[in-house]
Amino acid sequence: MAQVFNFSSGPAMLPADVLKQAQQELCDWHDLGTSVMEISHRGKAFIEVAEEAEKDFCDLLNIPSNYKVLFCHGGGRGQFSALPLNILGDKTTADYVDAGYWAASAVKEAKKYCTPHVIDAKTTVDGLRAVKPMSEWKLTDGAAYLHYCPNETIDGIAIDETPNFGDEVVVTADFSSTILSRQIDVSRYGVIYAGAQKNIGPAGLTLVIVREDLLGKASVACPSILDYSVLNENDSMFNTPPTFAWYLAGLVFKWLKQKGGVPQMERINQQKAELLYGVIDNSGFYRNDVAKANRSRMNVPFQLADSSLDSLFLEESFAAGLHALKGHRVVGGMRASIYNAMPLEGVQALTDFMRDFERRHG
Amino acid sequence: MAQVFNFSSGPAMLPADVLKQAQQELCDWHDLGTSVMEISHRGKAFIEVAEEAEKDFCDLLNIPSNYKVLFCHGGGRGQFSALPLNILGDKTTADYVDAGYWAASAVKEAKKYCTPHVIDAKTTVDGLRAVKPMSEWKLTDGAAYLHYCPNETIDGIAIDETPNFGDEVVVTADFSSTILSRQIDVSRYGVIYAGAQKNIGPAGLTLVIVREDLLGKASVACPSILDYSVLNENDSMFNTPPTFAWYLAGLVFKWLKQKGGVPQMERINQQKAELLYGVIDNSGFYRNDVAKANRSRMNVPFQLADSSLDSLFLEESFAAGLHALKGHRVVGGMRASIYNAMPLEGVQALTDFMRDFERRHG
Repeated sequence: MAQVFNFSSGPAMLPADVLKQAQQELCDWHDLGTSVMEISHRGKAFIEVAEEAEKDFCDLLNIPSNYKVLFCHGGGRGQFSALPLNILGDKTTADYVDAGYWAASAVKEAKKYCTPHVIDAKTTVDGLRAVKPMSEWKLTDGAAYLHYCPNETIDGIAIDETPNFGDEVVVTADFSSTILSRQIDVSRYGVIYAGAQKNIGPAGLTLVIVREDLLGKASVACPSILDYSVLNENDSMFNTPPTFAWYLAGLVFKWLKQKGGVPQMERINQQKAELLYGVIDNSGFYRNDVAKANRSRMNVPFQLADSSLDSLFLEESFAAGLHALKGHRVVGGMRASIYNAMPLEGVQALTDFMRDFERRHG
Repeated sequence: MAQVFNFSSGPAMLPADVLKQAQQELCDWHDLGTSVMEISHRGKAFIEVAEEAEKDFCDLLNIPSNYKVLFCHGGGRGQFSALPLNILGDKTTADYVDAGYWAASAVKEAKKYCTPHVIDAKTTVDGLRAVKPMSEWKLTDGAAYLHYCPNETIDGIAIDETPNFGDEVVVTADFSSTILSRQIDVSRYGVIYAGAQKNIGPAGLTLVIVREDLLGKASVACPSILDYSVLNENDSMFNTPPTFAWYLAGLVFKWLKQKGGVPQMERINQQKAELLYGVIDNSGFYRNDVAKANRSRMNVPFQLADSSLDSLFLEESFAAGLHALKGHRVVGGMRASIYNAMPLEGVQALTDFMRDFERRHG
């Protein structure tokens, strides 16, 4: 069948090479005669997979040695609970920056465990949706931590600034849809977490990077499967982890290293985003209403000037092998999610299609 | 390579036909040109997979219509927390029957949320490990529920009695290692849960069957990803579920239906267990120290009379294509886990090997 490019926001496209390898060894992994998903997580063979994945992840993000990496159940949403349950300690409030759908969802969950102080960072610049710069975020005295979401998958909004609030502020962030897509300075954060299903692997695995001095103060009410200390003490095997997802994540990390690592991914992601936003901006037919400084390189929502053409656009793009372009119901229109696994050729195929569609219907 | 039979306790063997189908369609599912793990959980294609899996599961277990099935993150251990968080309501205690490692682990987690009343059901019969019959379990007035584990994966102990405590008692049970292996009367339970990685699919998915009148009383402290009502209201898609595991579970359910469903599985499982226990009992070389009434049909621990032969047994059995027979560190010796996916031929191969090993070393 013809080449398909899948712009799904998550679960999302995986690198084609990774899927091919997984397929090849699915029934007979490492000549064992069994699948990697059929072996014990406590056996030597799987522990090698697990440790190598962790090491590669640390290499890719230059994670300092005073940070622990946890492979967890529960998705990004699970971390909305885990974060206050693990980091509040004896404090009763935390700062939550609201700049989009997911940041707001984190606030809602945090209310179960504390009185979050919400910093509304949404603003407009020349009528375009934007986020107030970090220098304007008014932090609260006595807050246990600051939480923000550097890439809003649904809104297509990114906060690319590097946090610089001083050593006293524990910065935590939901990197679900941007992890590994650009270089970050992990040392500026207390906790980074990310659901796997965008840039890491299949749904059902969540990665947490936590500074080790933040361990050991989980609430008694924290379910053990979400307790960072319990997970850390058990090498993320307090209970059976999602082993196949962990293995696939490991393959993705190897693929990233082969491709030149995060710096090279960042370059390609920039190219892809410039190409797509360029076509949108140089057209009266398509529009994106996010201010340039806050445009996401991962999730590009765009609208057709004439929304009555939406369904035709979706129908024709699907027929052209460009899948899952329908925008989130909250935002409408279209959305192209262009994570690491989306090659430049995929965005080229999309922009070629968009130009052609505009020519025919504009 | 030669046929391999994998006796891993979990993650465990999957039906060979299921793995083959998954392999075949891993990169191009339903002619979509993408993998099933790359598509949105909210799209029509995946929702069909999800609904069909749920329906097949309900068919297989004859689940009454006043029960809800939830597809969850977090493993069986996650349910150790979820159960008190969802079912305690305004009560402060629950009865926990302790008959093995996992039942005791559930007690430990429950202590975070209530004062569990532990019913020690461990006993001996003619020097063999056994469980007191249900008629001797002394329940507590005012307990929110009764919890037990009908199959102890590590101890090789099963409680096959059907609960009959009257309508007032909410019976909850950890069916992780026995679900779908034998017929059960779901209507006798308030909550049944099971980690997938033994009889359902790959690790990282947990199934919960909950009677609908028990919904709606989760503690405020319950993380939303473990809140039965939230999961139910969102068709188990409050957050991105482990989609690939859900899909694979669906394939396993179809396979079970093709094979004659749970009644036929029960017959085969009984045959397999009788064959293996028979060889053990008719030998002075091997022994199993569980009383007959409480022997697990799923997990068969056995010891060699001369434990200095343990490593040779493991080495030779592995070479013969009989994998993962090492017993849990708590119990030692050997353990053969013979879930639904293990064909009778696998147990025949194992018993042939055991007889031959005894002949050579006995």
